[in-house]
Amino acid sequence: MSLSFLGDLLQTITDRGRDLIRGRAQAPEEGDLSLACETLLSSRGEASGTGRALAILDRWEALDDAGRLGFLKMLADRYGPDPQRLARAVDAWRADPGPLTMAALHEAAEPRRQELIRRLNLAPGGIATLVRMREELFRHQGEHPALDAVDADFVHLFSSWFNRGFLVLRRIDWTTPAHILEKIIQYEAVHEIAGWDDLRRRLAPADRRCFGFFHPQLPDEPLIFVEVALTRDIPATIAEVLAEDRTPIAAEQATTAVFYSISNCQKGLRAISFGNFLIKQVVEELRRDLPGLDTFVTLSPVPGFAAWVKGEEGRPAALDQPGWWRDEAVRAEVEQALLPMAARYFVEARGRGGRVIDPVARFHLGNGARLERINFLGDLSPRGFKQAHGLMVNYLYRLPDIEKNHEAYAVQGKVVAAPAVTRLLKTAPKSRRKQG
Amino acid sequence: MSLSFLGDLLQTITDRGRDLIRGRAQAPEEGDLSLACETLLSSRGEASGTGRALAILDRWEALDDAGRLGFLKMLADRYGPDPQRLARAVDAWRADPGPLTMAALHEAAEPRRQELIRRLNLAPGGIATLVRMREELFRHQGEHPALDAVDADFVHLFSSWFNRGFLVLRRIDWTTPAHILEKIIQYEAVHEIAGWDDLRRRLAPADRRCFGFFHPQLPDEPLIFVEVALTRDIPATIAEVLAEDRTPIAAEQATTAVFYSISNCQKGLRAISFGNFLIKQVVEELRRDLPGLDTFVTLSPVPGFAAWVKGEEGRPAALDQPGWWRDEAVRAEVEQALLPMAARYFVEARGRGGRVIDPVARFHLGNGARLERINFLGDLSPRGFKQAHGLMVNYLYRLPDIEKNHEAYAVQGKVVAAPAVTRLLKTAPKSRRKQG
Amino acid sequence: MSLSFLGDLLQTITDRGRDLIRGRAQAPEEGDLSLACETLLSSRGEASGTGRALAILDRWEALDDAGRLGFLKMLADRYGPDPQRLARAVDAWRADPGPLTMAALHEAAEPRRQELIRRLNLAPGGIATLVRMREELFRHQGEHPALDAVDADFVHLFSSWFNRGFLVLRRIDWTTPAHILEKIIQYEAVHEIAGWDDLRRRLAPADRRCFGFFHPQLPDEPLIFVEVALTRDIPATIAEVLAEDRTPIAAEQATTAVFYSISNCQKGLRAISFGNFLIKQVVEELRRDLPGLDTFVTLSPVPGFAAWVKGEEGRPAALDQPGWWRDEAVRAEVEQALLPMAARYFVEARGRGGRVIDPVARFHLGNGARLERINFLGDLSPRGFKQAHGLMVNYLYRLPDIEKNHEAYAVQGKVVAAPAVTRLLKTAPKSRRKQG
Amino acid sequence: MSLSFLGDLLQTITDRGRDLIRGRAQAPEEGDLSLACETLLSSRGEASGTGRALAILDRWEALDDAGRLGFLKMLADRYGPDPQRLARAVDAWRADPGPLTMAALHEAAEPRRQELIRRLNLAPGGIATLVRMREELFRHQGEHPALDAVDADFVHLFSSWFNRGFLVLRRIDWTTPAHILEKIIQYEAVHEIAGWDDLRRRLAPADRRCFGFFHPQLPDEPLIFVEVALTRDIPATIAEVLAEDRTPIAAEQATTAVFYSISNCQKGLRAISFGNFLIKQVVEELRRDLPGLDTFVTLSPVPGFAAWVKGEEGRPAALDQPGWWRDEAVRAEVEQALLPMAARYFVEARGRGGRVIDPVARFHLGNGARLERINFLGDLSPRGFKQAHGLMVNYLYRLPDIEKNHEAYAVQGKVVAAPAVTRLLKTAPKSRRKQG
Repeated sequence: MSLSFLGDLLQTITDRGRDLIRGRAQAPEEGDLSLACETLLSSRGEASGTGRALAILDRWEALDDAGRLGFLKMLADRYGPDPQRLARAVDAWRADPGPLTMAALHEAAEPRRQELIRRLNLAPGGIATLVRMREELFRHQGEHPALDAVDADFVHLFSSWFNRGFLVLRRIDWTTPAHILEKIIQYEAVHEIAGWDDLRRRLAPADRRCFGFFHPQLPDEPLIFVEVALTRDIPATIAEVLAEDRTPIAAEQATTAVFYSISNCQKGLRAISFGNFLIKQVVEELRRDLPGLDTFVTLSPVPGFAAWVKGEEGRPAALDQPGWWRDEAVRAEVEQALLPMAARYFVEARGRGGRVIDPVARFHLGNGARLERINFLGDLSPRGFKQAHGLMVNYLYRLPDIEKNHEAYAVQGKVVAAPAVTRLLKTAPKSRRKQG
Repeated sequence: MSLSFLGDLLQTITDRGRDLIRGRAQAPEEGDLSLACETLLSSRGEASGTGRALAILDRWEALDDAGRLGFLKMLADRYGPDPQRLARAVDAWRADPGPLTMAALHEAAEPRRQELIRRLNLAPGGIATLVRMREELFRHQGEHPALDAVDADFVHLFSSWFNRGFLVLRRIDWTTPAHILEKIIQYEAVHEIAGWDDLRRRLAPADRRCFGFFHPQLPDEPLIFVEVALTRDIPATIAEVLAEDRTPIAAEQATTAVFYSISNCQKGLRAISFGNFLIKQVVEELRRDLPGLDTFVTLSPVPGFAAWVKGEEGRPAALDQPGWWRDEAVRAEVEQALLPMAARYFVEARGRGGRVIDPVARFHLGNGARLERINFLGDLSPRGFKQAHGLMVNYLYRLPDIEKNHEAYAVQGKVVAAPAVTRLLKTAPKSRRKQG
Repeated sequence: MSLSFLGDLLQTITDRGRDLIRGRAQAPEEGDLSLACETLLSSRGEASGTGRALAILDRWEALDDAGRLGFLKMLADRYGPDPQRLARAVDAWRADPGPLTMAALHEAAEPRRQELIRRLNLAPGGIATLVRMREELFRHQGEHPALDAVDADFVHLFSSWFNRGFLVLRRIDWTTPAHILEKIIQYEAVHEIAGWDDLRRRLAPADRRCFGFFHPQLPDEPLIFVEVALTRDIPATIAEVLAEDRTPIAAEQATTAVFYSISNCQKGLRAISFGNFLIKQVVEELRRDLPGLDTFVTLSPVPGFAAWVKGEEGRPAALDQPGWWRDEAVRAEVEQALLPMAARYFVEARGRGGRVIDPVARFHLGNGARLERINFLGDLSPRGFKQAHGLMVNYLYRLPDIEKNHEAYAVQGKVVAAPAVTRLLKTAPKSRRKQG
Repeated sequence: MSLSFLGDLLQTITDRGRDLIRGRAQAPEEGDLSLACETLLSSRGEASGTGRALAILDRWEALDDAGRLGFLKMLADRYGPDPQRLARAVDAWRADPGPLTMAALHEAAEPRRQELIRRLNLAPGGIATLVRMREELFRHQGEHPALDAVDADFVHLFSSWFNRGFLVLRRIDWTTPAHILEKIIQYEAVHEIAGWDDLRRRLAPADRRCFGFFHPQLPDEPLIFVEVALTRDIPATIAEVLAEDRTPIAAEQATTAVFYSISNCQKGLRAISFGNFLIKQVVEELRRDLPGLDTFVTLSPVPGFAAWVKGEEGRPAALDQPGWWRDEAVRAEVEQALLPMAARYFVEARGRGGRVIDPVARFHLGNGARLERINFLGDLSPRGFKQAHGLMVNYLYRLPDIEKNHEAYAVQGKVVAAPAVTRLLKTAPKSRRKQG
């Protein structure tokens, strides 16, 4: 009950609130945007701050490329901490170390733009513009390393505002409003959604599920979502999951939930991680609704494999022939060579900093999943061949083992893999190449 | 549409989410709570953090007084910044001043408890417990000044999480769920609500309004609310506003909106201010719905007046006779003496730090309101006599003047008052007493 | 999802819709109300009907007692079938019996007021006024038997509009909007609710439930509701159910759901029965949410017992002494005499038309419940003594037996009772009095 | 508030309610469906009726074509009134004419299937199946005239259940749930929607609106909807309204609301009219939200024109050449001939029963609209040419004239047309053909 009470609440922010405040913010300041920022920052929290913040964000949205970059550079140049104040605070702490001088030092070292960004967020719905601002920042970060410090402040604030405690999990299905579904089509990053009919096939059948995280301040924007197929077995190919003509099963008959696509939606929230929470919570939701489910597993791409295998000894030359997989003999030969290499790629090979090479593997292993199976010719799409010579893998989420697996991976760097995978290792010739 | 979509979202957090996670958080750690905190702080953001945070908060709720104080002292003693690390960061910055060393310094100066509190907030609904934790802190702060630093961190984080941009304004009326109305009764701080019948008289009639701010993470808890009477004149007494037998008018006939009670609800959010935003936004809402309204005014208590007048020359001795106001002659005499003193109390007298003495006056003047009228015998309740010898005042909110008034007050310390008030000053004998 | 979509839909009707249409219905007709009715009835379904209907209902609401009675009499006198038309239709059917002449006859026999009432219901929210109209009718029906025919038409139309298929079951609890809870206090007909604190005790504890039927067109009005206590045993007294100081149990620990109060809310819907549907559906709801429940039972008053027993031989004279039950010896004596008589009252005695005498018994037995237990001194309230010398009974709803019990009762007039009740019969002296 | 309260209510019916009841209705009767109907009809309203009704409807849904026809014929043959009972009632009325004998006669003349259908509607969501049942009836009505009587009963009951007072107007836009939008695509009957992109163009831009009527018992099914374009002028062609590359205007800049497509959705609700209510209410809604609108007009097809003109003297032979309109000279010649004929088609020509020939014209004129303009080459689609040689017309809804226009049309059969249309009549040679 109180939820629908609150549901209505949100209206104020996104719709009317914004208009009301904009209506009153007599003529967005025409002068210097930097002056407007200084005024906002120096004001003492009075109500006018809301209108000022909205005026600045409105103007920022209207700026061209150069104007936006200029704004970001201004944040970098003029909104760091005040060095003199900081020096004084350091001296005071040195002279009398203690909680109070330490707190003062911390405050003096805080970049002024943190408070500026907090105040910009006073504007109803302001956070959407701030997320876009960070997206813009990414476009220039390469050429303007000074923006790194600005980005660090965004990360700090966004981590706080998009704290897991503020996120809400929501099932997305064929009764979801169209303007949100349209974004699912747009944001799908793993197996492209070809249009509304394709989307319907992924959402409407009784054996399909989709869940996303949302933030109350961005009610129309999924932050991340996962697509799930309910099956009777662990699938080995994406084709069997997405087949147009398959016959759905009743959800109650399924034993296995397959996470076959996970997509982050907001570039501006890069490095603010939700994915690990998402999978775990979706597993809980599914277990609750469908007690018949006993296996939770992904069907995942292997985006780093083809690049890695290029430098490996024993790489089958056949891989360079287009369509090699259509010839049965070639296929058998490649399989025999490739699977052990793949096992090594996951379990033994390490990249920069001694890390597991595959980014998808790092994500799931870091979450406490186990590498369950390597599927030869799991993805026959051009992308599947280009990235991984068609390989796909399953990661298994067993709740009782998650903590243990996570520890093994995080602390000792150990990849937990199913026997079927580790057995492959024995047939793999040790790589002579040094790992970077 | 998307709002009702989101409304449902919130369910996950407050109800099921919490249970789900609690269900999985195998046996809240039995060991040392401090160990649990260290584990939570050192873990790398994996999903188990949610369960760990919830386990800690659950255990904290179960602690007795001493246990809770112990926990807070632990936060003070062990979760400040690391001095060695801070010293190194200071040296590095001294050696090479620049954005990067400054950022590193800022990070090193951040108390570790900020991150700990952020992670405790991973727990669904965790923020409610954190707010209660700060309430608990207040009880001990006097005797344990070390807790000041902990409080500063709460203020910092709560300011961010309860940013105006995250708050939602909601009308509260007789169709509001009972468990929320029950809190309105409980939290009313100015003119006590005597029970459900009294509450109904304040919410149900066509010429009454009530609005509150809510936070999506505390959907059942108003943060602050204001009660409004729609009238044809500016009222001079609270009795006429709250009379049980008055005849309501149609809202469309009203010209005046009277804010006659504003109550903060959450002790644990002290100093996180919403009040100024609330009044301004309620004015906007009312203007939109009722274009006939042209006057927005408060009917406010004067809580500091009686204490101040005690030390003033010219204070009528009659004030010490109980029931003095029932005698017409005495009443006239007191009125003549008291009103000029009251004008002086507001306009000229200053307290510690040169501030206006009355806290309610500071709030409204700081918001840009004008002191409109002083009402003799406005509040005949025991509290009204005790605090202010029965005085009440009206503060006027005129949107076009708010900014100007606020500036005059904030920058020059000038109290903007109506001519009727300033005229009273001329009849007031200058106090000979020095202001503290 | 589609539900919140529809939820919003309803707004049109009750709020804005009504105002919109009223706004347009330029000046409610000033002339004769009967003319307005004729115009509404003769118009050809065009859009203006909505405004006309609303104007008539608005005017009806504004009428005084005599005016309302006049309106009802007009319905009786002028809005029956047209006798000439009916005579012609009868002749046509006699001349050529068949489906078409029969249908024409049926149409000719339909009182014109049925169509008039249907058209009055065109007005948004019109049904609320129509229900009140029937309430008004009841007040005059005794003196004006001609209104019986009008009532029959109301029954016909209301049965269709309040068809079970249109009703929605809703849990009522402490998070329900106050304006609905206020009606629960008002409508409670069995064990008076003494105010909001009493209401809270019946709704808020974990071991209490309340459910009501609502109709989409009367969203703020419960039609009927039932209060339920979750317990570990079948209670024998209402005092133990309503005790102010009892300790609630967790809902999961309950084995028994006790329906201790069922109240019809709308007088104007008399004889449109929902009660039997309500109990059965609430049993289903409870079973679903709380699988630990295995016993569904009422704690019911026996409103006809005292009146019946008055004429019975063997009635203990002690019953006429006020407070007889405080004396242990008297109590024992009365118990021994009264219980067998009660068993006979339910199982053997019959009233007018050979029916079971007790109206509450008729309701539950008709629903397929079994008379489970007779509780001596179950209700110590003045009403309890007056109606039933303090007796209460439990009726047991066992889903697998409901159909069978219902059949036995409906077809053979047999009262199904537990062995403990039938055993009492053996000790009961046969009444010598003849049953009417 | 009470609306969201009620919104949740509806859940019971459509989802869970249905499952709950089905769960309990132990094994749908296997025997004769007709036996099940008799049992349902003879039962005394007890709770089991719900389960029985659902079982019958479930079985009906599972029947094949022949089975369904058989069921409908059974309704026709066995569920009319009882002739003996009717004869007795007629005799009683003849013997003693009066309200009571008349009421008894009416009851005796009511086909038993009315009560049967009412009881089938006890099933949660049963109405959806009943609407489909009537659709099925239409397929056989031609060959089985006995079904006419069954249809009359459906009309009687549906008129009551789909009374305007129960319908809710709902805006449909790009935030509407996809499963409802999918039905908009499917049900659009005037200008086909080519897919989701086309739908988006009709719903999402700021100058487009769509509204539909819904019934609380069919929450996922629009009953009728209208598509609206907000413009600065009255459009003459559908192409300009639906152009893919047009630039939307701000809604506030529009002066004209163009109803360019109205579609009935449920075949099974044929002859239960909502359209006239819909347009009038949408006009009210639009006026309220957009006070700048001063013109409410349709852009309508003329489906009967080509057929009528075929028999008319003076019909240009060029019309038989495909693509005639691409030749400027031919076009001019056809225009000169066709427009006067069109004026005559609407204003003077009459069809069967003396009615205006064009069904769309009958609808709008019956609603009180005025024939505003005839647009040559308004619809260049194949259907546009086939039906109307490309003609489209505008009907104007002026609220103050609606009643008057409606009267003129309904009572005197007069078509109210703009001067521009009536002027065309003067140039039109009188048809020599007699109107049928």
